[in-house]
Amino acid sequence: MPADPLVVGLDFGTLSGRAVVVRVRDGAELGTAVTEYRHGVVDDRLPATAEELPPGWALQVPSDYVDVLRTAVPAALADAGADPRDVIGIGTDFTACTMIPATADGTPLSELPEFAGNPHAYVKLWRHHAAQPQADRINAAARELGEPWLPRYGGLISSEWEFAKALQLFEEAPEVYRAMRHWVEAADWIVWQLTGTYVRNACTAGYKGIHQDGRYPGREFLRALNPGFESFVDEKLDHPIGQLGSLAGKLSTQAAAWTGLPAGIAVAVGNVDAHVTAPAAQAVEPGQMVAIMGTSTCHVMNGADLREVPGMCGVVDGGIVPGLWGYEAGQSGVGDIFGWFVEHCVPASYSDTARAEGLSLHEVLTRLAEQQEIGEHGLVALDWHSGNRSVLVDHELSGVIAGQTLSTRPEHVYRALLEATAFGTRKIIETFEAAGVPVTELIVAGGLTKNQLLMQIYADVTGLPLSVIGSAQGPALGSAIHAAIAAGAYPDVRAAAAAMGSVQRMAYQPVLSNVSAYDELYAEYTALHDYFGRGGNDVLHRLAARRRELATVAKGQN
Amino acid sequence: MPADPLVVGLDFGTLSGRAVVVRVRDGAELGTAVTEYRHGVVDDRLPATAEELPPGWALQVPSDYVDVLRTAVPAALADAGADPRDVIGIGTDFTACTMIPATADGTPLSELPEFAGNPHAYVKLWRHHAAQPQADRINAAARELGEPWLPRYGGLISSEWEFAKALQLFEEAPEVYRAMRHWVEAADWIVWQLTGTYVRNACTAGYKGIHQDGRYPGREFLRALNPGFESFVDEKLDHPIGQLGSLAGKLSTQAAAWTGLPAGIAVAVGNVDAHVTAPAAQAVEPGQMVAIMGTSTCHVMNGADLREVPGMCGVVDGGIVPGLWGYEAGQSGVGDIFGWFVEHCVPASYSDTARAEGLSLHEVLTRLAEQQEIGEHGLVALDWHSGNRSVLVDHELSGVIAGQTLSTRPEHVYRALLEATAFGTRKIIETFEAAGVPVTELIVAGGLTKNQLLMQIYADVTGLPLSVIGSAQGPALGSAIHAAIAAGAYPDVRAAAAAMGSVQRMAYQPVLSNVSAYDELYAEYTALHDYFGRGGNDVLHRLAARRRELATVAKGQN
Repeated sequence: MPADPLVVGLDFGTLSGRAVVVRVRDGAELGTAVTEYRHGVVDDRLPATAEELPPGWALQVPSDYVDVLRTAVPAALADAGADPRDVIGIGTDFTACTMIPATADGTPLSELPEFAGNPHAYVKLWRHHAAQPQADRINAAARELGEPWLPRYGGLISSEWEFAKALQLFEEAPEVYRAMRHWVEAADWIVWQLTGTYVRNACTAGYKGIHQDGRYPGREFLRALNPGFESFVDEKLDHPIGQLGSLAGKLSTQAAAWTGLPAGIAVAVGNVDAHVTAPAAQAVEPGQMVAIMGTSTCHVMNGADLREVPGMCGVVDGGIVPGLWGYEAGQSGVGDIFGWFVEHCVPASYSDTARAEGLSLHEVLTRLAEQQEIGEHGLVALDWHSGNRSVLVDHELSGVIAGQTLSTRPEHVYRALLEATAFGTRKIIETFEAAGVPVTELIVAGGLTKNQLLMQIYADVTGLPLSVIGSAQGPALGSAIHAAIAAGAYPDVRAAAAAMGSVQRMAYQPVLSNVSAYDELYAEYTALHDYFGRGGNDVLHRLAARRRELATVAKGQN
Repeated sequence: MPADPLVVGLDFGTLSGRAVVVRVRDGAELGTAVTEYRHGVVDDRLPATAEELPPGWALQVPSDYVDVLRTAVPAALADAGADPRDVIGIGTDFTACTMIPATADGTPLSELPEFAGNPHAYVKLWRHHAAQPQADRINAAARELGEPWLPRYGGLISSEWEFAKALQLFEEAPEVYRAMRHWVEAADWIVWQLTGTYVRNACTAGYKGIHQDGRYPGREFLRALNPGFESFVDEKLDHPIGQLGSLAGKLSTQAAAWTGLPAGIAVAVGNVDAHVTAPAAQAVEPGQMVAIMGTSTCHVMNGADLREVPGMCGVVDGGIVPGLWGYEAGQSGVGDIFGWFVEHCVPASYSDTARAEGLSLHEVLTRLAEQQEIGEHGLVALDWHSGNRSVLVDHELSGVIAGQTLSTRPEHVYRALLEATAFGTRKIIETFEAAGVPVTELIVAGGLTKNQLLMQIYADVTGLPLSVIGSAQGPALGSAIHAAIAAGAYPDVRAAAAAMGSVQRMAYQPVLSNVSAYDELYAEYTALHDYFGRGGNDVLHRLAARRRELATVAKGQN
């Protein structure tokens, strides 16, 4: 054991992978490096054949992930000025439900010459949305057969998840399905590349793979989806499941050569970007909700008991920390909405000001927005521009804004949109509490934490003290924490999080007068939320249906 | 009588006055000139004292109107190359319910040294909104006493109108009220300047002055408002009433000197910009609704019978054409909403395109909007950014837009706003028809007629053939028509309109497939209209109340 051991955390995102070198003793981040994926997101044409992909498809190329091992890890070590011999473990996190069809030895089918031209042989990225018909059938069958796991997913299985994507593969590319021995999460595939051993992580097995109470959905259910699909679990999902923070295996000689790290060091079981952030923010106790706020927001929280929360994304035993129930919820549009507004709805005079003062448009609007009293803008908005993940689980919803006058200015709408996302978070928190899962603290991570106005609004809207993660690289730090546990430096996630995680506790306190002002606006939000989202008026569905219908006609004419 | 006689039409708007020289024989517009008011709208500080005006105030300076006589009339004659001796009459129209407190000889009190520093002595422009408390009491008292005239105003008297402004004057500036002998519409005051005689026009007496069935509201009603106000009608509103197109008097020597026109020629009874436009567009028969579309839209239409239309602005015997019932309705925001959107909600890239191609932003957005299929934008909006005049008569309402996604672009919202105002017009038409006042043709005038996409949308949304006025200066032409009648060149408005008015009949035909597509979107508009406007959810009122409350607090702190 080195005198002052280090670990490496690896965070695989949608467009790039990041490596961070972290000191085991105190979690200090000593160096970092990022590698962009060479192929990025393949949603237009397949690189091998230039074949055009249908709408909703989103693929990736697995060798891009290996490139991160080869380039980002050595670069982060160099950046840290670290001796690789001091590194005792490596941990990873990945986007969730990014799926790879692989052979018995883990070779992605897209790397076999006979399948290089078949889109179905490639990685299906989390946001591949072309399996919606299969997801619809999965939900219908689960309801009909009364599958007990359905309420653990808020009543709805997503088209992004493992079974919908697998059923699409089975039905649309039977030759690829037949050649596939394992249907592998990228989170586990990358660990397989590091160790030479296939271990499925408990987190995505539960949240995305419908693995509940020790088993996957049964043969009867699979047969109801499609008779030939009956043996899917038996044939393609036979693998050991590893708890988070456990040792998946030892770093292989090949992976040691790629990374420059010593062969034989510990490699942790795979994990997911959002979930791994919880220990990085020292949020490992029941009631501590972590909101990872970026383009979208993911909420993760531990609970002592199993409860069924309407509209949550999922609840999984040991899904975040072994021994506790891990709850997940989400808002499908947050930073994305602010970005859309800034890009498409703000006039030149504001861009000119931003340029003249060397600020971003976000900064200009935030500065103006923070001068407003609560409600001065006279607006209330619904934050559904990208649909609603929790608690309505309805991607056909869209944004609404009420109260605009000829005096409405961009900074008014901007603030109303910030507030709308905070109302969305409060709605999630209240739904958890109503289901018997109390939320006592909100801990925020992700890129949006740097907007202080937004943070204060979240504290005032939720009425909760807001803690902010201390690291700008929460997922990578979280992966490093799991590496340290897997290497035996700490006995469990709690102890490792306490030593290596970092959080600024109670960074924002709710201001009493603001809380009561927002209570009134939140009541307005709730009324509109239920009117537009719970059947009062299905106009948003009808508008979406019409839009989709016209797009289909237009496509047919091309 | 000259061989080929001419008339002069004068249109007094909010910011300027326009003179047009028109040939009596065929309505040809031979020359025109505009004079901007030197003081414009006084809504910030009183020019004489620099005293700051309270919120909602909007004043004008009467000498600005006389300047139009002195400058625009000679300039229009020069522009026409006309011999002033060929001019046989002059007609005027004005903004409605712009009120002047005057002495017995018509001198505005603001021109008396003792009152030059008193804001209440000035012209209260139509959009002076500070008499809302008085308007509220007028409506309450009228309802309580069951005043028979109230339903003729859709059930609501506006704060812009004569009695509300008078009561404010009485209560807030009793010394000005006492010194005032006549409470004069600017429309009549300018005729008084031209002729030396005070004649009240039947149009504003009816629409704004609550003059119905030959009388103003009675003493009992006035006493209910305020005991000292009992004698208001007797003391301040004693005047003859002139029918539209009648002779108010002969051009005085002084006015002849101002204008360069021959003394003694006919001067027509005063009129209102919107109403005078109807004969200019040859819309003098029952069922022909004229929509004058500019920053706001005013709808005027003749009807054979008296009906009570909920939410109309008013119905007046001879209010447009003597012998018919003149109906008026309105939309408080139309071009204003498009202008607001273009100024405050469209990003720099569009401005750059407009500049590069030498187009206005409106043109760029219209070009993109017209490429869309109906409903392709997935949006529905309520056009209440400036409140709702008809049929809800509610200025506390505000705009709503539903259906925005991350793919929503400015041209989508722009088109949705165009459509929303068309839906608002359809709502008015349907309300008229439901009340037994059929609408058979829509005739459009005003600045917005040049937008062909907008015109087609109006035809498709209303399902009515759209005729477009032939003149770009409808009000001034309408005033010229009334001048010709007053001068005896035509026997009545019908005959003069037939000869001098001009309209492109059926310029836009509704397209059947568009009509049915818009039927669906209009059903969505109606559902939201009733939800937000008829008590389903009073959120817009609450948002407005909060906004106003915060503005009051902020003002108190200054």
